[in-house]
Amino acid sequence: MAPQLDGFFKQVDDLSSKFVDRLGKAVAIPSVSSDAARRPDVVRMAHFLEGELKAIGAEVELRPLGKQPDNPSLDLPPVILARYGRDEKKRTILVYGHYDVQPAEKSDGWNTEPFELTVDKDGRMLGRGSTDDKGPVLGWLNAIEAHQAAGIDFPVNLLMCFEGMEEYGSEGLDALIEAEAKLFFKDAEAVCISDNYWLGTEKPCLTYGLRGCNYYSIEVSGPAADLHSGVFGGTAQEPMTDLTRVLATLVDTNGVIQIPGIAEQVAPVTADEETMYDSISFTMETLHQSLGSKTTISEDKKKTLMARWRFPSLSIHGVEGAFSAPGAKTVIPAKVIGKFSIRTVPNMEIDKTNELVFKYVKEQFAKLGSKNSLKVGALHTGNWWVASPKHWNFSAAAKAVERVWGVEPDYTREGGSIPVTLTFEQATGKNVLLLPMGSSTDGAHSINEKLDMRNYIEGIKLLGAYLHYVAVEPTQ
Amino acid sequence: MAPQLDGFFKQVDDLSSKFVDRLGKAVAIPSVSSDAARRPDVVRMAHFLEGELKAIGAEVELRPLGKQPDNPSLDLPPVILARYGRDEKKRTILVYGHYDVQPAEKSDGWNTEPFELTVDKDGRMLGRGSTDDKGPVLGWLNAIEAHQAAGIDFPVNLLMCFEGMEEYGSEGLDALIEAEAKLFFKDAEAVCISDNYWLGTEKPCLTYGLRGCNYYSIEVSGPAADLHSGVFGGTAQEPMTDLTRVLATLVDTNGVIQIPGIAEQVAPVTADEETMYDSISFTMETLHQSLGSKTTISEDKKKTLMARWRFPSLSIHGVEGAFSAPGAKTVIPAKVIGKFSIRTVPNMEIDKTNELVFKYVKEQFAKLGSKNSLKVGALHTGNWWVASPKHWNFSAAAKAVERVWGVEPDYTREGGSIPVTLTFEQATGKNVLLLPMGSSTDGAHSINEKLDMRNYIEGIKLLGAYLHYVAVEPTQ
Repeated sequence: MAPQLDGFFKQVDDLSSKFVDRLGKAVAIPSVSSDAARRPDVVRMAHFLEGELKAIGAEVELRPLGKQPDNPSLDLPPVILARYGRDEKKRTILVYGHYDVQPAEKSDGWNTEPFELTVDKDGRMLGRGSTDDKGPVLGWLNAIEAHQAAGIDFPVNLLMCFEGMEEYGSEGLDALIEAEAKLFFKDAEAVCISDNYWLGTEKPCLTYGLRGCNYYSIEVSGPAADLHSGVFGGTAQEPMTDLTRVLATLVDTNGVIQIPGIAEQVAPVTADEETMYDSISFTMETLHQSLGSKTTISEDKKKTLMARWRFPSLSIHGVEGAFSAPGAKTVIPAKVIGKFSIRTVPNMEIDKTNELVFKYVKEQFAKLGSKNSLKVGALHTGNWWVASPKHWNFSAAAKAVERVWGVEPDYTREGGSIPVTLTFEQATGKNVLLLPMGSSTDGAHSINEKLDMRNYIEGIKLLGAYLHYVAVEPTQ
Repeated sequence: MAPQLDGFFKQVDDLSSKFVDRLGKAVAIPSVSSDAARRPDVVRMAHFLEGELKAIGAEVELRPLGKQPDNPSLDLPPVILARYGRDEKKRTILVYGHYDVQPAEKSDGWNTEPFELTVDKDGRMLGRGSTDDKGPVLGWLNAIEAHQAAGIDFPVNLLMCFEGMEEYGSEGLDALIEAEAKLFFKDAEAVCISDNYWLGTEKPCLTYGLRGCNYYSIEVSGPAADLHSGVFGGTAQEPMTDLTRVLATLVDTNGVIQIPGIAEQVAPVTADEETMYDSISFTMETLHQSLGSKTTISEDKKKTLMARWRFPSLSIHGVEGAFSAPGAKTVIPAKVIGKFSIRTVPNMEIDKTNELVFKYVKEQFAKLGSKNSLKVGALHTGNWWVASPKHWNFSAAAKAVERVWGVEPDYTREGGSIPVTLTFEQATGKNVLLLPMGSSTDGAHSINEKLDMRNYIEGIKLLGAYLHYVAVEPTQ
């Protein structure tokens, strides 16, 4: 029996201006986690949420996380752990979001004050944090309130975990999740995270995969100190020459990774998977727009999606220790550190990948016959994540999308990483669903970040509808 | 007839503590030309020199140079133009030096206060500017004073040109030299510059050649803004990949330039030249010491000197626009600018070299088949300089070296550039001699810059003796 949602939906519409006001209050608190001077605002944002949660009858705890590792005089903002409902006959669903935001200054190029939510004539709600991630976080609260207003029983017990350091590496969160897996989170039967975006602007999606990221450094050193290229050019073997020649062997212009053994680790494309891409709402035109150029490797939608989602990529990010300022400086840098990363996919293994990278880099350097010294290492590694989109958590969400938006959702993966996804999956052992509210044009980390009014209001309906469907979805 | 120099030499010895005091007063003025806040000190240094010059009876003018091009609110420090003697029966010699210095802070790692001249037990006079170039500049003044004290007629009319912006690109100097070539400098029959160093620590040298420097940039751009490597890795052609692959084709680990046509421009080594290197006081051990490593291209002294002096070299300096900080950042830079330079030698032509570089870079980029855009250009170019070491200006200096140091000087070239050398040669049409006072271990631009007491005192004798020999040296 399909859940009765009309009353809930009507209340969301009726309360929409209150929900926009609530988002406005949240956006007005500049909870920039990367800026130590803004830390009181981040904490103020936590207390604002605490108040809103209590007002709708949730149980709330603010969990301190201790000091910030790279700035030990600074307290980390608390993690908000909240619970709404304790009915043993209901399913318990855990949701995650974050209440901190990226930095923003009007002078960066914003058309409006970044910390004043401004609704324009096209219904775009402009403001830092509107889509990332204050809109989705408040979405859960708004869904609860609309149920109360409609007099409809809330369909699940809802556990909420909202952190305040997502934009600065989620400091302290992993340890808390692991510690609480069998405590606060123990009843969770499935996890839902609303902190990513539709692939385009028109069609909702459910996200079931993320690439991992292994980040490497190659250090080449020789002389004891930087040298003058007039005096030593032609005399000394130059670390920058060696590094450049090694970096140039990693990947070609079309993104083909040159390191033997990487491609062999990648899960083969199945016939089943082949069919998945055609229906996905994605065009090369949209991609060219977001690139601001037509410099894509492929002109083919399917190849492009596969390259982003299910094949590894290698990017060279830069060089530390070389001359990097504008102008001209005739230095021979004594020690240079090249940085590159590989986005990883099933079934690549971190250790095996590291081993292949280290071996290849050492071989390429050895070919140079240089007297300089090489060090290659991984600065950090993070695994890929793929969930089963056939899990009842996903099929419930798909039904909610159809109910709210009238279309079947796209099943998408993302090229980037959301490490907390994997942490929740591993700590709880439960299926994790990424259920985005905003669209691809929201500009989460850019100037003029926005959330479309439609995505916010229908998104609140979607989150609520998801909880109704997931409450009754049969386990396979 | 050899000049009678004993009386002059004795006075230099007798006045040595006064000459050290004079250097101490000069070092105490922190005339750092690159620091706008220190500009009053640079001007104070000019007035100090003006006073010292007037005290020994020189005619002095301070020539204003107008505003600093990159900081139009700041006056450039004046050029000091001074003359000592107006005897038409004497030769007129033009000398150049600079009274500004590199920056220095005790906290950079100095063992002593950088702006307090400190003489240690080994006779090393430590202080910023001691060797570069306040010691040599005062050397000319001290030589005049010692002649007066000895009651010996000064052998030449001396024109002096001392600038205060050498360490910041000699702003404004070229125009002044060209304007004064037929005015203040018109009587000059030869030019002597004391602003470089011995090849080692034991044997004096005369320097007759400098390499030029052409500095290039390669810009590769594609996307409109920096991209997230998770989202766009594998999808977009990355400018940094292309740039790295182009930079890697420029030069190999052993310094062999890969650009066709460069080697063909280089003057062949003559049999005469072949014999010049053997006697030069230079060891690979000294080179390894200054490198702080054994990462030289060659183990052979002659090959190494030729590589530094008479063959071109290519150094990759760095990349602008890429990630260059410590740590890990998963950026795909949208626009990256690689910087490299070629040290040029006879008979390379600037325009021909530029043309070869541009053509090669474009060809290498074209091979990539990239949709990104390439720009290649020269940020600046400066020609090489080679004088005839057989000119009477050099033979006079060689006799002075033999008289003061008891050895024949090495005839050296330098791998770096001193652009004013070429300017003086071209503007005056006269032979230019580089006659260094300090030794290779002085650390001109480093912490703990020093001038050995011996090099200072014998150097004063050398400058004076040079003027005696150059006064009577027959023109060939």
